[in-house]
Order: sequence, then C-alpha cells, then structure tokens
Amino acid sequence: MTNFLSLSDVTDLDALIQSGRDAKANPFADQHIGKNKTIGLIFFNSSLRTRLSTQKAAQNLGLNVMIMNVGQDSWGLEMEEGVLMNGDKAEHVREAAAVIGRYCDIIGIRAFAELKDRNADYREQVMHQFAKYADVPIVNLESATRHPLQSLADCITIDEAKRVARPKVVLTWLPHFKPLPQAVANSFCEWMNARAQAGAVEFVMTHPEGYELAPEFAGNARVIYDRAEAFAGADFIYGKNWSSYTQYGQVLTQDPSWAVTMNDMALTNNGKFMHCLPVRRNLKVSDAVLDGPQSLVIEQAANREWSAQAVLKEILKRA
Amino acid sequence: MTNFLSLSDVTDLDALIQSGRDAKANPFADQHIGKNKTIGLIFFNSSLRTRLSTQKAAQNLGLNVMIMNVGQDSWGLEMEEGVLMNGDKAEHVREAAAVIGRYCDIIGIRAFAELKDRNADYREQVMHQFAKYADVPIVNLESATRHPLQSLADCITIDEAKRVARPKVVLTWLPHFKPLPQAVANSFCEWMNARAQAGAVEFVMTHPEGYELAPEFAGNARVIYDRAEAFAGADFIYGKNWSSYTQYGQVLTQDPSWAVTMNDMALTNNGKFMHCLPVRRNLKVSDAVLDGPQSLVIEQAANREWSAQAVLKEILKRA
Amino acid sequence: MTNFLSLSDVTDLDALIQSGRDAKANPFADQHIGKNKTIGLIFFNSSLRTRLSTQKAAQNLGLNVMIMNVGQDSWGLEMEEGVLMNGDKAEHVREAAAVIGRYCDIIGIRAFAELKDRNADYREQVMHQFAKYADVPIVNLESATRHPLQSLADCITIDEAKRVARPKVVLTWLPHFKPLPQAVANSFCEWMNARAQAGAVEFVMTHPEGYELAPEFAGNARVIYDRAEAFAGADFIYGKNWSSYTQYGQVLTQDPSWAVTMNDMALTNNGKFMHCLPVRRNLKVSDAVLDGPQSLVIEQAANREWSAQAVLKEILKRA
Repeated sequence: MTNFLSLSDVTDLDALIQSGRDAKANPFADQHIGKNKTIGLIFFNSSLRTRLSTQKAAQNLGLNVMIMNVGQDSWGLEMEEGVLMNGDKAEHVREAAAVIGRYCDIIGIRAFAELKDRNADYREQVMHQFAKYADVPIVNLESATRHPLQSLADCITIDEAKRVARPKVVLTWLPHFKPLPQAVANSFCEWMNARAQAGAVEFVMTHPEGYELAPEFAGNARVIYDRAEAFAGADFIYGKNWSSYTQYGQVLTQDPSWAVTMNDMALTNNGKFMHCLPVRRNLKVSDAVLDGPQSLVIEQAANREWSAQAVLKEILKRA
Repeated sequence: MTNFLSLSDVTDLDALIQSGRDAKANPFADQHIGKNKTIGLIFFNSSLRTRLSTQKAAQNLGLNVMIMNVGQDSWGLEMEEGVLMNGDKAEHVREAAAVIGRYCDIIGIRAFAELKDRNADYREQVMHQFAKYADVPIVNLESATRHPLQSLADCITIDEAKRVARPKVVLTWLPHFKPLPQAVANSFCEWMNARAQAGAVEFVMTHPEGYELAPEFAGNARVIYDRAEAFAGADFIYGKNWSSYTQYGQVLTQDPSWAVTMNDMALTNNGKFMHCLPVRRNLKVSDAVLDGPQSLVIEQAANREWSAQAVLKEILKRA
Repeated sequence: MTNFLSLSDVTDLDALIQSGRDAKANPFADQHIGKNKTIGLIFFNSSLRTRLSTQKAAQNLGLNVMIMNVGQDSWGLEMEEGVLMNGDKAEHVREAAAVIGRYCDIIGIRAFAELKDRNADYREQVMHQFAKYADVPIVNLESATRHPLQSLADCITIDEAKRVARPKVVLTWLPHFKPLPQAVANSFCEWMNARAQAGAVEFVMTHPEGYELAPEFAGNARVIYDRAEAFAGADFIYGKNWSSYTQYGQVLTQDPSWAVTMNDMALTNNGKFMHCLPVRRNLKVSDAVLDGPQSLVIEQAANREWSAQAVLKEILKRA
C-alpha cells in the first residue's frame, strides 16, 4: 500500500480486516516498525475520533506524531494550479505538501467537502494534490467524497459482530437540518459493494427519493425506497445523514420518520445499530436505540484505532 | 484512586503530598509505570500551567499524551440527558466520553464555570458525565467548582516552605474587574480545612462581605472580615479573586485596598505570598510583593508538575 | 550556546553549518542527548515549517516536545514592566516565562513584528523578556526582527549547492500587497555579511529605493538598485518581500517587475533560486522558476530540520 485514499488502494481487504483485528488483540506487537519514523496529521476540519484514534494507532506502532490544524496553527493553502496568488491563501499546496513530505514519512489529511460545487468536491483536489506533491504516502482522514478509515472500521465491526456468514447490512438515511457531506455514505457503499461481491454481506440502501448517491459509489447496490421493507430481517442497520448529490448539497427533507427508533429496530432480525458518530440524539436516532444492547456505536468508534493501525502498518511495511 | 475529581478521592493526603515531593526529588523514578498507556487531556477552556505541567508529569511517568481543545480541534458537546439535539452541539458526552475512554487509559478534563446559573455550575455536570460514561479514570484539570491539582500543589508548596509545624495560612480575596469562578478558592478552602483538621495548618479566610464561599466549601473555616486582623502573624498569604457565590457570578466591589502590597505583607510573620497564577500585576498584587523574596508563586506553579505526577502515579498504580 | 536569539550567539558558524549537514546525513546519531529533557514551543503567530521542522529536530534528538499557541491554547501575555494590568492581557511574561522555564529545558518562541511601532518591534521585547525571566535557553523561532533558524538553513543550503568556493549571493526584494516584517531579510543580511567577511560568499542586495534595511542589519552589504546589474552572474538569487523600514511597515510599491521570472534568472550564472516560504506564486515568483531545476526552495525548507537540530544539539551539549 502506497497511499490509502480509497478502497482501490487495498489489495487484500480480508487480510486488512484481519490485521485490524490482530492489532486489537495485541496492540503493541508491531511497536518497532514505526521507530524513528513520523506521521504528520493535517486537519483542514475539526475531528475527535479520527484525530485521537489515528494518533493512538500511530503511537502503538512506535511512530512519532505531529499534528497541524490548517488555518489555525498555520494559514490557508491554495490548491489550484497556475493562479496568481493575490487572495487570502498564503501558500500553495505544491510547496506545503512537498515540505511536509520532507519532515514526515506518512501524511494524513482531513479535508471535507464544501458542498458548494459538486465537480470541485468530487475532483478530490486536496487529496490528489497532496498525493502528487508530497512524495510520501498519504492517508485519507476523510476527504470530500470518502472516509475509508471509517469504512474499514465498519468492516471490522461487522466482521466481529456478525452471527451469520452473510449478514444483511442496511444503510439508512437519517434526517438532519444541516447539509452534511456524502463522504461516509459514499465510502460505506463502496466498501459494502465490495464485501457483497465477495459474498461477505448482503447490502441494501434505503433513503428518500432525491438522496441517491453518486453512481460511482452507489454501483449496483439495491435501493429500496420502502424503509420497512429494507429493514426487514436486517442484521445491521447503518444510519447516516447526507445531503443530496443530485440537487447538490441541498436538504430536501427533514422528515422525522426517518429517524431510527426501537420500533424500526423491531423490524430487523434483532439487528445491530451502527453510526460513525458524532450523532445528534433524538434527531437522527433515539436514546433508546443508542443506549440499548443493539447499539454498536462505541465499539465501532473504538475500532477506528485498529483500522488506522492496520493501514499504517501496511504502509510502513512497504516503506 | 480511581478518579481525581476532588479531595474526597484522596485516601491519604499526607502520603500524596510526600509522593509529589518524591517526584520532585527524582522525576524519572517511575518512568516505566505509564509505558504503553495514554492520557487524553481535554480542554473546554484555555490553559497554560495545567496544560504544560500535566503533560510534563505524564511524560515523566512514560505516558503518551493526546491533547484536544473542544470547540476548536473538535465541536461542542451536549451534556444534558434526553434532549433533542437540534442546536449547536453536534455530539453528546455519552458518546464522546465513552469513545475517548476507549482510546485513553486516563482522561483529564478542564471545564470552567459559566457563572450564569449557580445550580448548573455546582452540579459539576461535565466532570460527572465524563466520570459516568468514560469507563476510565477522570482527572479534574479545573472544573466549575474545584481545582484539586492546584490545591495539592499548594499543599506541597506549604509543606516545603513552612518554618513552624502548624503555620497560619490566610486566604485573602483580591480585587478584579471581571467575574472569575470560585473554583480555586473553593478547592483551597476544602483542602486547608482538611489540613487544619489534621493539625497541619491554622486556616483563616478574609474577604469583603458578600464574598462568602459556598457552605460545602467554607465548612468551619474561620472568616475574619477585618483584613489586618486576618493577616496578623500569618505564615502564608494566599491571594485569589473570586466572584460572589451568594449573588452568583457578580462583582460586588473592586475595592483596590484589597490588593496585596508590601504594607500588607508587613503585618505577617515574614509570611510567604502564594497565588495560583495567572495574576494581574498591580491590580491584585503589587510588583514588589511578586518580585520580592516573600513570593512563592513560581515555586508553587512549578509544583503543579509534581502534584500532577503524584496523582497520575496513584491512578496508574491502581489501574 | 546558551540562547539562540541571533547570529551573535554563534561562536563557530562553520562548525554549526557542518553540524547541520552531519545531522542530515545521520539524523539519529544523537538520539540519546535529549533523553528526559523537554522543549516547549510557544507560538504567538502561525507557523508551518518552523512548527514541524523544530518539532521533528527535537524528536530526532530524543527531546520531548510540548507546543502551546498563545492566545488560543492560553491567553495573551503582558510584556511591559510596571504596568497596572487592567486590560486584555491576563498574565505577565515574568510569570509565564519563569513557569514555562520550570517545565521545559529549552523554550522556542515565535513572535512576529506588529509593524505599528518600529521602536517597539526593534526592541525585541518578547525574546528579551523570555530570555530574562525563563532561566533556560531560549531559541528564536522568528522574532520581530530576526529569523536565525531560517538563516542557518539558508547557509546550509548554499553550502550544499555551491559550485564555486565563493558564490555570488543576491538578496532581491519581491512585490506583495501586504506589509510583511523585515525579519527574514534582516537575518539573511546579517548572516550573509558574516559569510562574506569569512570569504565564503560575495553578497549583494537589490530592492526599490525606500526599502533599505535597518543599518544594524544592512551593515556594509552592497546595495545595487539596478536589478539587472545585481542579478548578473549570480549563483544564488534569494527572493523575499519586506515592508519599508524607513517608512516603517509601509508598502511603498507593488511594482510587478520585481517578481522573479525565468527572464530574470537568465541573467544569472545558471543561478539557483531560494525563498524561505510561504511564497505567493506568480505574485512574487513565477511558477516556471519555482517548478524548474533552478529552484532550491524545497531543499531549503527541508534544511530547516537540520538547522534546528544543529542548534538544539549545541544547546543540549552545553546544558
């Protein structure tokens, strides 16, 4: 693994999931492999789980960690090529990426979608510019369209908790008053399609009309607009809000009946509830679901450490 | 020691003071005890001494340190139970605490009083919610009503500097134009009352009328409204401003005669001056007092490292 | 070396440059020397290269690193003596410096010029107050009038890349719409004057009239107002914008013909281009120059790590 920008950087997903589970069982077994190496974690946006879990995973592998909040610790970065830099961005990514790449052996980047211009977001410019100019491996800490460390943690969580060989996994849209990026939903869809193709899960999506994901992420996943039908017999309900892709960045509905409650969970096969967090309680999911025995959200978040550790180990092995 | 939220978590105060003094004499003697363990320091408010001294103490014990500024590195946290989260808080403490507790072996939290609602502040919700949901030991890095790491450093400082077995310690209110929390004064009072009960000090408070501390902190401490009488023969003058508890969060007076000057120190038994810092010079205390041989403020701040180290060691021994 | 505030703290510049080059060749050779020691990096202003390269250099030497952003992680610091602190600064540097010095073995400070009051900036109050009150070595991470870690990296870069024993080095002013401090230009001038005196370089400056540097930095350096004449036969072109010293903090011209292009570089002896970064592309320097084989800017930034490592090693050897 050179970069970890998306699923396409993973050559053996089963092995990567297993590596995460091995790290969970024995966190310090590879403590030597990062010795005298440094990871830089660069945040264009806020972070709690990603910040802490990636830092922790790096430390477990013996890596030094340097963290920088762009626009707070330093200044804004220009991403476009060939421009006259007479605006508010004081430095170009060509220099920033190349220089950080000289101080760090791996660079993790978080840069959310701005939800203003679909083409701009879906070009994934920040990731691609860092990958182009940094000369060291880049790890996606959530980009405009993907959150692969989350998806790997989700795969680990499903793998741990499944009671049947090929569980039914349902991605369900949740209501929210603010427009959120599609990154987590896109990535989950991309990874579950791969798991479905490998025979590891049955994958279904349900959401209001108008919330169809981008075709390159939706792939051949089955969409069932009838939510009750989708939930029926599910082993895992994966809740997430996202704004519209087709009417880009818009909130088309806030219909509260899409929030997940115990009544909804009763439709499942005693299914587990998953969410990447943060989650707004009682807006998206009821307290009863989150605090009940069906909730996996804390274990899922805890697995972010092992997902990051598996990825960093894979990168360090190849470095 | 499981949590370190207040004095009531301390089983043997004499031993804890001695442990701090031992750490000061030999900072790296317990460097193995934190190996492969991590402390998370979570700041809802600004910090200089607490941030650096706790980080340093943790490193002395071999702990990894992860620091997060809430509302800056991440987003605001909802503390109330059962609410519909449709406001500005994106995550609930139930998830945040539980998740951080999966990445960290100990969590330190700083969350000041808001000084708007006395009941809200005195419920100490942030500390209690973290302690309830984190599943790992919580260390109070200054909460709405207490600053026990400061009080322990104060005990160490008095123990080091005392010239008689049972020194007279005076807590004196200082003037300030802004309303400040009662936390440092409360804690100091709580700890000095315990020290007085143990026969280690004689403790007296002096402040303008209307600045009486909450009964649960004031306890049986003697209040002498006549400042000169209180200062007479004191071995230690401990200065601090706080806003009114009874007229909650109000500045009732800014009377400059409550600032500590060399004339005031002349009333003491060649007493030492203490303050937790930061201190506004010449508003609360004169330059001459702070820069003279009677000032202990730098030594007191330096002792924050050893106070934190004693507490973290105690927690690690029990983990 | 006790402090590293300016060139005058360097006793043997040739040895220091060589020490940086040795660190680059063998980064971990001195990993034991910082064991159980801590450096505090205190930022009054934003930073990318300085933040990361100094942190990295410290880690290479085995130092623990604690970072604090003043005014963000903590509060503003009063620098003036004898004042009544009833404004927005909650703590005095006397306490802050003394206390940080108790937690840290070395302190690095970044505090830019405010460009409002020349005397205030050129007094270098922040550095001097920290040096006076901290009681541990202070490292200048860019002050109001100097950036010596940059200048040392520049010396290393020139030493590495020179093709003749005594290369011609030209400092050229670049256009910018915002007033920038003189620190980098001042320091470069100070260090190049020393290198010229040692016979290691021929040093020339070129800039529009009105941009003369302070006499104590310009020294005897030759100023050639005719830019083409200055560039002729140059081995190194060092570009930098600065605001006027004589009309303090003013932008006197934004003349775009002072931006460095390939046409300008064609006047040189196949010269190399240097800039301390960040650089606004096409405003100050053309893409073609920065992306061409003559550019040293990335190597120069990479050398910041070895410049910091040489300085920290020197300080640790003497501690």
